[in-house]
Amino acid sequence: MQVKVLTEILQANDAQASSNRQLLDRKGVFLVNVMSSPGSGKTTFLIDVARRLKGRVRVGVIEADVASTVDAEKVAREGIPVLQINTGGGCHIEARQMADALTRFPLQDVDVLFLENVGNLVCTAGYRLGEHRRIVIASVPEGDDKPYKYPTMFHVVDAVVVSKADLVPYVKYDFDEFSRAVRSINREVGIFRLSAVTGEGMDAWCSWLLEQVRSAGGQS
Amino acid sequence: MQVKVLTEILQANDAQASSNRQLLDRKGVFLVNVMSSPGSGKTTFLIDVARRLKGRVRVGVIEADVASTVDAEKVAREGIPVLQINTGGGCHIEARQMADALTRFPLQDVDVLFLENVGNLVCTAGYRLGEHRRIVIASVPEGDDKPYKYPTMFHVVDAVVVSKADLVPYVKYDFDEFSRAVRSINREVGIFRLSAVTGEGMDAWCSWLLEQVRSAGGQS
Repeated sequence: MQVKVLTEILQANDAQASSNRQLLDRKGVFLVNVMSSPGSGKTTFLIDVARRLKGRVRVGVIEADVASTVDAEKVAREGIPVLQINTGGGCHIEARQMADALTRFPLQDVDVLFLENVGNLVCTAGYRLGEHRRIVIASVPEGDDKPYKYPTMFHVVDAVVVSKADLVPYVKYDFDEFSRAVRSINREVGIFRLSAVTGEGMDAWCSWLLEQVRSAGGQS
Repeated sequence: MQVKVLTEILQANDAQASSNRQLLDRKGVFLVNVMSSPGSGKTTFLIDVARRLKGRVRVGVIEADVASTVDAEKVAREGIPVLQINTGGGCHIEARQMADALTRFPLQDVDVLFLENVGNLVCTAGYRLGEHRRIVIASVPEGDDKPYKYPTMFHVVDAVVVSKADLVPYVKYDFDEFSRAVRSINREVGIFRLSAVTGEGMDAWCSWLLEQVRSAGGQS
Protein backbone atom coordinates (compact mmCIF):
# COMPACT_ATOMS: atom_id res chain seq x y z
CA MET A 1 0.00 0.00 0.00
CA GLN A 2 2.66 2.50 1.06
CA VAL A 3 4.91 1.39 -1.81
CA LYS A 4 2.13 1.82 -4.38
CA VAL A 5 1.30 5.31 -3.09
CA LEU A 6 4.97 6.28 -3.15
CA THR A 7 5.39 5.06 -6.74
CA GLU A 8 2.36 7.10 -7.84
CA ILE A 9 3.70 10.17 -6.05
CA LEU A 10 7.14 9.83 -7.69
CA GLN A 11 5.64 9.34 -11.18
CA ALA A 12 3.45 12.43 -10.80
CA ASN A 13 6.49 14.30 -9.49
CA ASP A 14 8.63 13.35 -12.52
CA ALA A 15 5.91 14.51 -14.93
CA GLN A 16 5.69 17.88 -13.16
CA ALA A 17 9.51 18.14 -13.12
CA SER A 18 9.60 17.73 -16.93
CA SER A 19 7.03 20.46 -17.27
CA ASN A 20 9.08 22.74 -14.97
CA ARG A 21 12.16 22.10 -17.08
CA GLN A 22 10.33 23.06 -20.29
CA LEU A 23 9.22 26.34 -18.70
CA LEU A 24 12.77 27.11 -17.52
CA ASP A 25 14.23 26.38 -20.95
CA ARG A 26 11.65 28.60 -22.65
CA LYS A 27 12.57 31.41 -20.25
CA GLY A 28 16.33 30.81 -20.62
CA VAL A 29 16.82 30.15 -16.89
CA PHE A 30 19.37 27.59 -15.64
CA LEU A 31 18.17 25.94 -12.39
CA VAL A 32 20.61 24.47 -9.86
CA ASN A 33 19.21 22.35 -7.00
CA VAL A 34 21.51 22.88 -3.99
CA MET A 35 21.22 20.21 -1.31
CA SER A 36 23.04 19.57 1.98
CA SER A 37 22.74 18.90 5.70
CA PRO A 38 21.40 21.72 7.87
CA GLY A 39 24.12 24.26 8.59
CA SER A 40 26.58 23.34 5.82
CA GLY A 41 26.78 26.97 4.73
CA LYS A 42 24.49 26.93 1.68
CA THR A 43 23.25 30.51 2.09
CA THR A 44 26.71 31.98 2.69
CA PHE A 45 28.02 30.03 -0.31
CA LEU A 46 25.23 31.22 -2.62
CA ILE A 47 25.62 34.87 -1.57
CA ASP A 48 29.36 34.66 -2.28
CA VAL A 49 28.71 33.02 -5.67
CA ALA A 50 26.19 35.74 -6.60
CA ARG A 51 28.74 38.46 -5.70
CA ARG A 52 31.46 36.81 -7.79
CA LEU A 53 29.19 36.35 -10.82
CA LYS A 54 27.91 39.92 -10.78
CA GLY A 55 28.09 41.42 -14.26
CA ARG A 56 28.45 37.99 -15.88
CA VAL A 57 25.14 36.27 -15.10
CA ARG A 58 22.09 37.46 -13.19
CA VAL A 59 21.54 35.21 -10.18
CA GLY A 60 18.33 34.53 -8.23
CA VAL A 61 17.57 32.26 -5.27
CA ILE A 62 14.56 30.28 -4.08
CA GLU A 63 14.87 29.42 -0.39
CA ALA A 64 13.10 26.28 0.85
CA ASP A 65 12.79 25.71 4.57
CA VAL A 66 10.49 23.81 6.89
CA ALA A 67 9.78 27.14 8.59
CA SER A 68 11.07 30.74 8.92
CA THR A 69 12.35 33.33 6.43
CA VAL A 70 15.83 33.63 7.98
CA ASP A 71 17.71 32.72 4.79
CA ALA A 72 15.56 34.73 2.39
CA GLU A 73 16.14 37.85 4.51
CA LYS A 74 19.93 37.36 4.31
CA VAL A 75 19.79 36.94 0.53
CA ALA A 76 17.41 39.89 0.03
CA ARG A 77 19.84 42.17 1.90
CA GLU A 78 22.31 41.51 -0.93
CA GLY A 79 19.87 42.82 -3.52
CA ILE A 80 19.47 39.33 -5.01
CA PRO A 81 15.96 38.39 -6.27
CA VAL A 82 14.70 35.83 -3.75
CA LEU A 83 11.55 33.87 -2.92
CA GLN A 84 10.96 31.88 0.29
CA ILE A 85 8.99 28.61 0.29
CA ASN A 86 8.02 26.98 3.59
CA THR A 87 7.21 23.28 3.50
CA GLY A 88 5.24 23.40 6.77
CA GLY A 89 6.87 20.21 8.03
CA GLY A 90 7.92 18.55 4.77
CA CYS A 91 11.53 17.36 4.54
CA HIS A 92 11.97 18.24 0.85
CA ILE A 93 10.53 20.24 -2.03
CA GLU A 94 8.42 18.45 -4.64
CA ALA A 95 8.07 19.43 -8.30
CA ARG A 96 4.57 20.89 -7.85
CA GLN A 97 5.88 23.22 -5.09
CA MET A 98 8.68 24.22 -7.45
CA ALA A 99 6.13 24.84 -10.23
CA ASP A 100 4.17 27.13 -7.92
CA ALA A 101 7.36 28.96 -6.91
CA LEU A 102 8.35 29.45 -10.57
CA THR A 103 5.03 31.19 -11.31
CA ARG A 104 5.75 33.61 -8.47
CA PHE A 105 9.45 34.25 -9.23
CA PRO A 106 10.54 37.05 -11.61
CA LEU A 107 12.20 34.64 -14.07
CA GLN A 108 12.79 37.42 -16.61
CA ASP A 109 15.29 38.99 -14.17
CA VAL A 110 17.66 36.00 -13.81
CA ASP A 111 19.90 33.71 -15.87
CA VAL A 112 20.85 31.28 -13.09
CA LEU A 113 18.37 30.31 -10.39
CA PHE A 114 19.53 28.43 -7.28
CA LEU A 115 17.10 26.40 -5.22
CA GLU A 116 18.43 26.18 -1.67
CA ASN A 117 16.62 22.97 -0.73
CA VAL A 118 15.60 21.94 2.81
CA GLY A 119 18.63 20.94 4.92
CA ASN A 120 18.47 17.18 4.53
CA LEU A 121 20.76 14.54 2.99
CA VAL A 122 18.03 11.90 2.55
CA CYS A 123 14.60 13.05 1.31
CA THR A 124 15.74 15.80 -1.05
CA ALA A 125 17.81 13.37 -3.15
CA GLY A 126 14.70 11.48 -4.33
CA TYR A 127 12.68 14.30 -5.92
CA ARG A 128 13.48 15.78 -9.33
CA LEU A 129 12.30 19.36 -9.70
CA GLY A 130 13.18 20.15 -13.31
CA GLU A 131 16.66 21.36 -12.40
CA HIS A 132 19.56 21.45 -14.90
CA ARG A 133 22.15 20.48 -12.30
CA ARG A 134 22.14 19.07 -8.77
CA ILE A 135 24.90 19.76 -6.26
CA VAL A 136 25.50 18.69 -2.70
CA ILE A 137 27.44 20.76 -0.19
CA ALA A 138 29.22 18.75 2.52
CA SER A 139 30.96 20.90 5.10
CA VAL A 140 34.29 19.94 6.68
CA PRO A 141 33.00 19.77 10.30
CA GLU A 142 30.42 17.15 9.24
CA GLY A 143 33.30 14.72 8.78
CA ASP A 144 34.79 12.77 5.90
CA ASP A 145 32.52 9.70 6.12
CA LYS A 146 29.22 11.21 4.93
CA PRO A 147 29.21 9.64 1.42
CA TYR A 148 29.11 6.15 2.96
CA LYS A 149 26.15 7.09 5.14
CA TYR A 150 24.09 8.99 2.52
CA PRO A 151 25.04 7.22 -0.74
CA THR A 152 21.95 8.17 -2.77
CA MET A 153 22.67 11.87 -2.39
CA PHE A 154 26.27 11.50 -3.57
CA HIS A 155 25.09 9.28 -6.45
CA VAL A 156 22.51 11.69 -7.92
CA VAL A 157 24.55 14.92 -7.93
CA ASP A 158 26.58 16.57 -10.71
CA ALA A 159 29.07 18.21 -8.33
CA VAL A 160 30.18 17.84 -4.73
CA VAL A 161 31.19 20.99 -2.86
CA VAL A 162 33.27 20.66 0.30
CA SER A 163 32.57 23.86 2.25
CA LYS A 164 34.23 25.44 5.33
CA ALA A 165 37.70 24.25 4.24
CA ASP A 166 39.09 26.95 6.56
CA LEU A 167 38.09 24.72 9.51
CA VAL A 168 40.35 21.79 8.47
CA PRO A 169 43.08 22.73 11.01
CA TYR A 170 40.60 22.50 13.90
CA VAL A 171 38.77 19.24 13.21
CA LYS A 172 39.51 15.62 12.33
CA TYR A 173 39.04 15.58 8.54
CA ASP A 174 40.90 13.85 5.72
CA PHE A 175 40.05 15.31 2.29
CA ASP A 176 41.59 12.33 0.47
CA GLU A 177 39.46 9.95 2.54
CA PHE A 178 36.36 12.00 1.70
CA SER A 179 37.24 11.97 -2.00
CA ARG A 180 37.74 8.19 -1.93
CA ALA A 181 34.31 7.80 -0.33
CA VAL A 182 32.69 10.00 -3.00
CA ARG A 183 34.52 8.14 -5.81
CA SER A 184 33.29 4.78 -4.51
CA ILE A 185 29.74 5.98 -5.24
CA ASN A 186 30.13 8.42 -8.15
CA ARG A 187 33.30 7.90 -10.16
CA GLU A 188 33.12 10.96 -12.42
CA VAL A 189 31.63 13.70 -10.27
CA GLY A 190 33.58 16.94 -9.75
CA ILE A 191 34.71 17.61 -6.17
CA PHE A 192 35.32 21.25 -5.22
CA ARG A 193 37.01 22.13 -1.94
CA LEU A 194 36.35 25.72 -0.94
CA SER A 195 35.83 28.28 1.78
CA ALA A 196 33.54 31.29 1.62
CA VAL A 197 35.64 32.79 4.46
CA THR A 198 39.06 32.68 2.74
CA GLY A 199 37.76 32.51 -0.85
CA GLU A 200 39.75 29.32 -1.51
CA GLY A 201 38.29 27.35 -4.44
CA MET A 202 35.44 29.75 -5.16
CA ASP A 203 36.75 30.81 -8.59
CA ALA A 204 37.13 27.19 -9.69
CA TRP A 205 33.56 26.40 -8.73
CA CYS A 206 32.18 29.53 -10.43
CA SER A 207 34.07 28.58 -13.62
CA TRP A 208 32.55 25.09 -13.48
CA LEU A 209 29.07 26.59 -13.09
CA LEU A 210 29.50 28.99 -16.01
CA GLU A 211 30.73 26.11 -18.17
CA GLN A 212 27.62 24.09 -17.24
CA VAL A 213 25.36 27.01 -18.14
CA ARG A 214 27.14 27.48 -21.48
CA SER A 215 27.04 23.78 -22.37
CA ALA A 216 23.31 23.68 -21.61
CA GLY A 217 22.75 26.55 -24.01
CA GLY A 218 21.16 28.59 -21.28
CA GLN A 219 23.56 31.43 -22.14
CA SER A 220 24.19 32.70 -25.65
CA MET B 1 -5.26 10.27 0.16
CA GLN B 2 -1.68 10.94 1.22
CA VAL B 3 -2.90 12.56 4.45
CA LYS B 4 -5.13 9.58 5.31
CA VAL B 5 -2.29 7.12 4.71
CA LEU B 6 0.07 9.24 6.84
CA THR B 7 -2.44 9.39 9.70
CA GLU B 8 -2.84 5.60 9.63
CA ILE B 9 0.93 5.15 9.61
CA LEU B 10 1.41 7.48 12.59
CA GLN B 11 -1.38 5.80 14.62
CA ALA B 12 0.10 2.35 14.01
CA ASN B 13 3.52 3.77 14.92
CA ASP B 14 2.28 5.18 18.23
CA ALA B 15 0.72 1.84 19.20
CA GLN B 16 3.98 0.04 18.47
CA ALA B 17 5.92 2.71 20.40
CA SER B 18 3.77 2.07 23.51
CA SER B 19 4.47 -1.63 23.21
CA ASN B 20 8.21 -0.94 22.89
CA ARG B 21 8.08 1.21 26.01
CA GLN B 22 6.38 -1.54 28.00
CA LEU B 23 9.09 -4.00 26.97
CA LEU B 24 11.86 -1.56 27.95
CA ASP B 25 10.26 -0.87 31.35
CA ARG B 26 9.91 -4.60 32.03
CA LYS B 27 13.59 -5.06 31.22
CA GLY B 28 14.66 -1.99 33.24
CA VAL B 29 16.25 -0.30 30.21
CA PHE B 30 16.12 3.51 29.79
CA LEU B 31 15.99 4.46 26.08
CA VAL B 32 17.25 7.81 24.81
CA ASN B 33 16.48 8.83 21.21
CA VAL B 34 19.41 10.95 19.98
CA MET B 35 18.62 13.08 16.93
CA SER B 36 20.63 15.65 14.94
CA SER B 37 21.84 16.78 11.54
CA PRO B 38 24.39 14.59 9.78
CA GLY B 39 27.86 15.21 11.18
CA SER B 40 26.93 16.88 14.46
CA GLY B 41 29.16 14.50 16.38
CA LYS B 42 26.57 12.07 17.77
CA THR B 43 28.85 9.03 17.73
CA THR B 44 31.81 10.83 19.32
CA PHE B 45 29.47 12.25 21.97
CA LEU B 46 27.95 8.86 22.80
CA ILE B 47 31.33 7.14 23.05
CA ASP B 48 32.52 9.87 25.44
CA VAL B 49 29.33 9.54 27.53
CA ALA B 50 29.75 5.76 27.73
CA ARG B 51 33.35 6.18 28.95
CA ARG B 52 32.32 8.68 31.63
CA LEU B 53 29.44 6.55 32.88
CA LYS B 54 31.55 3.37 33.11
CA GLY B 55 31.00 1.69 36.48
CA ARG B 56 27.83 3.68 37.13
CA VAL B 57 25.44 2.49 34.41
CA ARG B 58 25.89 -0.01 31.61
CA VAL B 59 25.48 1.74 28.25
CA GLY B 60 24.50 0.30 24.86
CA VAL B 61 23.94 1.88 21.46
CA ILE B 62 21.69 1.17 18.47
CA GLU B 63 23.03 2.87 15.34
CA ALA B 64 20.52 3.82 12.64
CA ASP B 65 21.81 4.90 9.26
CA VAL B 66 20.51 4.97 5.71
CA ALA B 67 23.51 2.80 4.80
CA SER B 68 26.90 1.59 6.07
CA THR B 69 28.18 0.30 9.42
CA VAL B 70 30.74 3.08 9.94
CA ASP B 71 29.33 4.24 13.29
CA ALA B 72 28.66 0.78 14.73
CA GLU B 73 32.27 -0.19 14.04
CA LYS B 74 33.53 2.86 15.97
CA VAL B 75 31.28 2.06 18.94
CA ALA B 76 32.14 -1.65 18.92
CA ARG B 77 35.86 -0.81 19.13
CA GLU B 78 35.08 0.72 22.55
CA GLY B 79 33.65 -2.57 23.82
CA ILE B 80 30.15 -1.07 23.98
CA PRO B 81 27.24 -3.39 23.05
CA VAL B 82 26.02 -2.10 19.67
CA LEU B 83 23.55 -3.00 16.91
CA GLN B 84 23.42 -1.38 13.46
CA ILE B 85 20.11 -0.82 11.66
CA ASN B 86 20.10 0.32 8.02
CA THR B 87 16.94 2.00 6.76
CA GLY B 88 17.78 1.31 3.10
CA GLY B 89 16.77 4.82 2.06
CA GLY B 90 14.39 5.80 4.87
CA CYS B 91 15.04 9.15 6.55
CA HIS B 92 14.07 7.99 10.05
CA ILE B 93 13.46 4.96 12.24
CA GLU B 94 9.89 3.83 12.90
CA ALA B 95 8.63 2.05 16.02
CA ARG B 96 8.35 -1.32 14.26
CA GLN B 97 12.03 -1.12 13.22
CA MET B 98 12.87 -0.26 16.83
CA ALA B 99 10.79 -3.24 18.02
CA ASP B 100 12.74 -5.52 15.71
CA ALA B 101 16.04 -4.05 16.92
CA LEU B 102 15.04 -4.55 20.57
CA THR B 103 14.45 -8.28 19.98
CA ARG B 104 17.99 -8.54 18.59
CA PHE B 105 19.75 -6.39 21.23
CA PRO B 106 21.14 -7.92 24.47
CA LEU B 107 18.88 -5.80 26.71
CA GLN B 108 19.94 -7.73 29.82
CA ASP B 109 23.45 -6.25 29.44
CA VAL B 110 22.50 -2.54 29.54
CA ASP B 111 20.80 0.03 31.78
CA VAL B 112 20.81 2.94 29.35
CA LEU B 113 20.31 2.39 25.63
CA PHE B 114 20.98 5.19 23.14
CA LEU B 115 19.40 5.17 19.71
CA GLU B 116 21.61 7.19 17.37
CA ASN B 117 18.88 8.09 14.87
CA VAL B 118 19.41 8.86 11.16
CA GLY B 119 21.10 12.25 10.67
CA ASN B 120 18.04 14.38 9.94
CA LEU B 121 16.36 17.34 11.69
CA VAL B 122 12.96 16.85 10.04
CA CYS B 123 11.64 13.29 9.65
CA THR B 124 13.03 11.82 12.88
CA ALA B 125 11.10 14.34 15.02
CA GLY B 126 7.72 12.90 13.98
CA TYR B 127 8.11 9.27 15.01
CA ARG B 128 7.86 8.08 18.62
CA LEU B 129 9.80 4.89 19.25
CA GLY B 130 8.99 4.13 22.89
CA GLU B 131 11.90 6.18 24.18
CA HIS B 132 12.02 7.64 27.70
CA ARG B 133 13.77 10.82 26.60
CA ARG B 134 14.49 12.58 23.29
CA ILE B 135 17.51 14.83 22.76
CA VAL B 136 18.74 16.85 19.82
CA ILE B 137 22.41 17.62 19.23
CA ALA B 138 23.07 20.87 17.35
CA SER B 139 26.74 21.48 16.61
CA VAL B 140 28.31 24.94 16.71
CA PRO B 141 29.40 25.00 13.03
CA GLU B 142 25.77 24.44 11.96
CA GLY B 143 25.04 27.98 13.15
CA ASP B 144 22.85 29.57 15.81
CA ASP B 145 19.65 29.87 13.71
CA LYS B 146 18.68 26.18 13.44
CA PRO B 147 15.77 26.27 15.95
CA TYR B 148 13.91 28.76 13.75
CA LYS B 149 14.34 26.52 10.71
CA TYR B 150 13.52 23.16 12.34
CA PRO B 151 11.02 24.14 15.06
CA THR B 152 9.31 20.74 15.44
CA MET B 153 12.57 19.08 16.44
CA PHE B 154 13.34 21.68 19.10
CA HIS B 155 9.75 21.44 20.34
CA VAL B 156 9.62 17.67 20.90
CA VAL B 157 12.93 17.16 22.75
CA ASP B 158 13.70 16.94 26.48
CA ALA B 159 17.22 18.35 26.17
CA VAL B 160 19.24 20.32 23.63
CA VAL B 161 22.95 19.58 23.37
CA VAL B 162 25.22 22.12 21.68
CA SER B 163 28.24 20.11 20.54
CA LYS B 164 31.68 21.13 19.21
CA ALA B 165 31.82 24.16 21.53
CA ASP B 166 35.60 24.09 20.97
CA LEU B 167 34.96 25.50 17.46
CA VAL B 168 33.31 28.72 18.71
CA PRO B 169 36.50 30.80 18.21
CA TYR B 170 36.65 29.84 14.52
CA VAL B 171 33.06 30.35 13.35
CA LYS B 172 30.28 32.92 13.54
CA TYR B 173 28.17 31.65 16.44
CA ASP B 174 26.32 33.38 19.27
CA PHE B 175 25.31 30.97 22.03
CA ASP B 176 22.89 33.51 23.56
CA GLU B 177 21.20 33.94 20.18
CA PHE B 178 20.90 30.15 19.86
CA SER B 179 19.43 29.90 23.38
CA ARG B 180 16.90 32.63 22.60
CA ALA B 181 15.87 30.74 19.47
CA VAL B 182 15.42 27.50 21.46
CA ARG B 183 13.46 29.30 24.23
CA SER B 184 11.08 30.82 21.66
CA ILE B 185 10.00 27.24 20.81
CA ASN B 186 10.55 25.28 24.05
CA ARG B 187 10.59 27.47 27.15
CA GLU B 188 11.66 24.86 29.73
CA VAL B 189 14.08 22.58 27.89
CA GLY B 190 17.61 22.14 29.24
CA ILE B 191 20.40 23.45 27.00
CA PHE B 192 23.84 21.88 27.44
CA ARG B 193 26.87 23.41 25.77
CA LEU B 194 29.73 20.95 25.53
CA SER B 195 32.75 19.65 23.66
CA ALA B 196 33.86 16.05 23.41
CA VAL B 197 37.33 17.39 22.49
CA THR B 198 37.95 19.55 25.60
CA GLY B 199 35.46 17.78 27.89
CA GLU B 200 33.66 21.07 28.63
CA GLY B 201 30.08 20.49 29.81
CA MET B 202 30.21 16.68 29.61
CA ASP B 203 29.89 16.13 33.38
CA ALA B 204 26.83 18.40 33.57
CA TRP B 205 25.13 16.48 30.79
CA CYS B 206 25.95 13.08 32.31
CA SER B 207 24.53 14.27 35.65
CA TRP B 208 21.32 15.34 33.90
CA LEU B 209 21.04 11.94 32.22
CA LEU B 210 21.57 10.02 35.48
CA GLU B 211 18.92 12.19 37.16
CA GLN B 212 16.48 11.37 34.33
CA VAL B 213 17.17 7.66 34.71
CA ARG B 214 16.66 7.85 38.48
CA SER B 215 13.43 9.87 38.21
CA ALA B 216 12.05 7.35 35.72
CA GLY B 217 12.76 4.54 38.18
CA GLY B 218 14.98 2.83 35.64
CA GLN B 219 17.72 2.68 38.31
CA SER B 220 17.19 1.57 41.88
